Amino acid sequence: MADTAPAPVDFRTDPSQYRHWKLALEGRVARVAMDVQEDGGLRPGYELKLNSYDLGVDIELHDLVQRLRFEHPEVGAVLLTSARERVFCAGANIRMLGQSSHGWKVNFCKFTNETRNAIEEASAESGQVWVCAIKGACAGGGYELALACQHIVMADDGTTSVALPEVPLLGVLPGTGGLTRLVDKRHVRRDRADVFCTLEEGVRGRRAVEWGLVDEVVPRSQLEETARRRAEAFAARSDRPAGARGIRLTRLEREVGGDRIAYRHVTCALDRTRGVAEITVAAPDDAPPAGLAGIHERGDRFWPLAMARELDDLILHLRTNEETVGLWILKTAGRSDAVAAYDQLLDQHAGDWLVREIRLFLKRVFKRLDVSSRSIFALIEPGSCFAGTLLELALAADRSYMLDGTFEGDGRPAPAVRLTALNFGAYPTGSGLTRLATRFLGQPDRADDLKGRIGEDLEAAAAAEAGLVTATPDDIDWEDEVRLAIEERAAFSPDALTGMEASLRFAGPETVETKIFGRLSAWQNWVFQRPNAAGPRGALQVYGTGQRPEFDRRRV
Amino acid sequence: MADTAPAPVDFRTDPSQYRHWKLALEGRVARVAMDVQEDGGLRPGYELKLNSYDLGVDIELHDLVQRLRFEHPEVGAVLLTSARERVFCAGANIRMLGQSSHGWKVNFCKFTNETRNAIEEASAESGQVWVCAIKGACAGGGYELALACQHIVMADDGTTSVALPEVPLLGVLPGTGGLTRLVDKRHVRRDRADVFCTLEEGVRGRRAVEWGLVDEVVPRSQLEETARRRAEAFAARSDRPAGARGIRLTRLEREVGGDRIAYRHVTCALDRTRGVAEITVAAPDDAPPAGLAGIHERGDRFWPLAMARELDDLILHLRTNEETVGLWILKTAGRSDAVAAYDQLLDQHAGDWLVREIRLFLKRVFKRLDVSSRSIFALIEPGSCFAGTLLELALAADRSYMLDGTFEGDGRPAPAVRLTALNFGAYPTGSGLTRLATRFLGQPDRADDLKGRIGEDLEAAAAAEAGLVTATPDDIDWEDEVRLAIEERAAFSPDALTGMEASLRFAGPETVETKIFGRLSAWQNWVFQRPNAAGPRGALQVYGTGQRPEFDRRRV
Repeated sequence: MADTAPAPVDFRTDPSQYRHWKLALEGRVARVAMDVQEDGGLRPGYELKLNSYDLGVDIELHDLVQRLRFEHPEVGAVLLTSARERVFCAGANIRMLGQSSHGWKVNFCKFTNETRNAIEEASAESGQVWVCAIKGACAGGGYELALACQHIVMADDGTTSVALPEVPLLGVLPGTGGLTRLVDKRHVRRDRADVFCTLEEGVRGRRAVEWGLVDEVVPRSQLEETARRRAEAFAARSDRPAGARGIRLTRLEREVGGDRIAYRHVTCALDRTRGVAEITVAAPDDAPPAGLAGIHERGDRFWPLAMARELDDLILHLRTNEETVGLWILKTAGRSDAVAAYDQLLDQHAGDWLVREIRLFLKRVFKRLDVSSRSIFALIEPGSCFAGTLLELALAADRSYMLDGTFEGDGRPAPAVRLTALNFGAYPTGSGLTRLATRFLGQPDRADDLKGRIGEDLEAAAAAEAGLVTATPDDIDWEDEVRLAIEERAAFSPDALTGMEASLRFAGPETVETKIFGRLSAWQNWVFQRPNAAGPRGALQVYGTGQRPEFDRRRV
Repeated sequence: MADTAPAPVDFRTDPSQYRHWKLALEGRVARVAMDVQEDGGLRPGYELKLNSYDLGVDIELHDLVQRLRFEHPEVGAVLLTSARERVFCAGANIRMLGQSSHGWKVNFCKFTNETRNAIEEASAESGQVWVCAIKGACAGGGYELALACQHIVMADDGTTSVALPEVPLLGVLPGTGGLTRLVDKRHVRRDRADVFCTLEEGVRGRRAVEWGLVDEVVPRSQLEETARRRAEAFAARSDRPAGARGIRLTRLEREVGGDRIAYRHVTCALDRTRGVAEITVAAPDDAPPAGLAGIHERGDRFWPLAMARELDDLILHLRTNEETVGLWILKTAGRSDAVAAYDQLLDQHAGDWLVREIRLFLKRVFKRLDVSSRSIFALIEPGSCFAGTLLELALAADRSYMLDGTFEGDGRPAPAVRLTALNFGAYPTGSGLTRLATRFLGQPDRADDLKGRIGEDLEAAAAAEAGLVTATPDDIDWEDEVRLAIEERAAFSPDALTGMEASLRFAGPETVETKIFGRLSAWQNWVFQRPNAAGPRGALQVYGTGQRPEFDRRRV
């Protein structure tokens, strides 16, 4: 928001605190209605008119998507609607965008798109299919939200329309996935997409179906019933267990104070002067439950889930509230055996709905790391447990340093990393490849060959030989090499690092998801930075003032 | 360059005018040595020290790549070297970049990368394989040039190195393909790429091979011989005919004056007030030659080649010298039968080396349209000939308007479009798909089905039904609809249009090429626009002054 940010943003919420969404559970179908409170903005200075949204609205949606998946195994489809009669959703609030800093805008778009990815993942992998029913104007981010749903039904009533009016109205892009989802997900013909994205008033009725912008239109009187029928049909095909009991996601406990953030399994030490956050993820300190029933019984105290929730919250907290902390150092603490034992449970019971949700959640958390505009180093030291699920942290890092041997005077054994079955498919990146496959893109067999080494403790030389770590200094070199790397990183241009990391992290195939984060977001960031949008006479700034924007007409 | 540009840039040149490159023909191998003249900058204000380059240097390289392919069928491999002993190439000239406008920098990077794409295409599809021999420092754009070659041999002499020092030294990206080619072409492991891109001094010797940065290192005394042997081996496997005679690319004649640019087959009318360029491509006015010998005999007067050269030059001219002309309107004039007859020749003799070059050149020209940051409309009117090769112009456009029927009082028949065999594979886009396949991404059979309609003249209704055109107004609506669309386009933010078009034009699979143009370039554009690089205390501005850059440390 304003450059001097007020109170930090807290991403923790629960349904009792929702101001902008209504949730109704109706057997196998959950009904989610957007009902944004005009005076409920996260920051002062704007009113959330016409069901427009800001980060606060999306924090609630993010929580809601998460809870539906964990707390409601019986829900096989979600029906997304608006509580308003005349407007579905007007998109991101323009005044909010106009008064926001560049970084806030970019971070806001990233988080909202991650939530839309989670909606798509729920439809595709979790048996919880999202159906959207549109009546009234559905514009910009509103239509981008609809685009995240599996099936879109729209009222054919002469006034309801879908639109992406960002280019003609605001001089920015439909940057929360809209452009990419049009042509790459819905396969809208590119020339039609071009016309559509320049029509302030959008497209309605039959043409919206013909162009592929929505899946069907029905008379307004039949919207509710049709959409419900579609949702029920998806729910009937869902493999989620209608009779199972969900687990409750209790409020995440944490201590935030000064330069320290502490959760139960995850802690973070901030050095704001150096711009470094040291994040330590602890192995489980209890024995794994005996079987599936034990996992369900532990609920959100089950280590992989508890750890994932904490790490997720920390990532979001750091991204939003600690902008100048540019380097995240990932460490682990505890016994690899303990991690591997939990991994075995996650592997063994992969078919269970709850275990599936936990694995998918971990996948999303690691993907948040991939798209965080922060440099990430992993430090692999004595006492660490980079095994299986936690090894993904090192594989997600831009580079990793592993001590070769022990520290003088330190009684602990030399560190080792360990592969488990979960490194070979449980946590694909946005590209669809595992982090191992992305790492060895030129040698497709190499990741497969490593399956033969599952369970082995690989010390520095072996880990380096297997290609799993970047550098392996010994006791004598460790301190200097690591300190230098950290200091150097802090001295580089933060923007150049962001662009470099975004280019190097996503080798290999591209998907709708990577295209949005890589290509579309980069263009949006550029546009957000341009005087034609964000300058004093830029389109985004003068919107609603009655003034016309002034453009530098040179094409770049 | 400076915001008030001096004389327009002319992309036409020939070996007699080269100042920066030496070409030696040695049988099947051509030897190209970079030898940049320090005082040979295209604009005043900088010296091209250490074999650094500016647009002028790259215009010559572009010409050279082109001539090697057309004028030298006997050349099966190209050996790229430096005429300097201590430096291979220091990359793009930093002072030139520092004094350039945002638009100039972006356009410069785009053109240089297109030339590197042409080098890669020569290696992959033209039987003219580029081999690079590096001695001395090879940094930034110098290494990016090497990365475009098929095989890189480097001297192992303690001083020779490859480096991408943009991030640590300049606060910008290796944005001419470097980052993408590292991980996606050469499959350098991402953590090693991360280390490499932050090392000012780069990497040399065995480690460069181990990391995949180069293909082999040899003692300096053996560099010349090894590289030559590699080139000879590639040449020996080339299918280019050693005994054939090339065709000469004579100087392109054109008249540039006021608001008109005229070539033999291509004309352009500029309306700078409205920001519109109307480009008309004329069908051949002569009968096609009788057979293959006739094609060779006509040489660069052969219509497809002559037209391609003219259109290519015009695109480059407009991009560089007419920045505020944001909308290109493509028209054609002449008989579809004439175009189709030439297409038949290009189809029939596809195996001939010259015909292959002509088809590949046309492919490159159309790809230049795809990545031009200009809106493109096609107008399909009576008297037009959007057939086959020329139909690609309409398919490359962001949208097309086709008159349904005739104009009142105009004796000419209603316009028609026509598919030929060449629309089904001769001119793939950067993604590897044809423009038809990209258009019908959601219905993969549809492009194939259209093969059944090759040769048919499709008037508006049929063309619309086949999905080939965007809108088909009739005589009554035509003028208003087209005029309005043009006026509207001119009123939008040029930046938003650039981002939108770049997102909508490249649906479907991604390749190194599309990743560079879409993802990497977008990030580079963003970085180029950021105060941390381009502001008064930005890294790019203070480089070489002895001052340290000042960074806003917020990560975005």
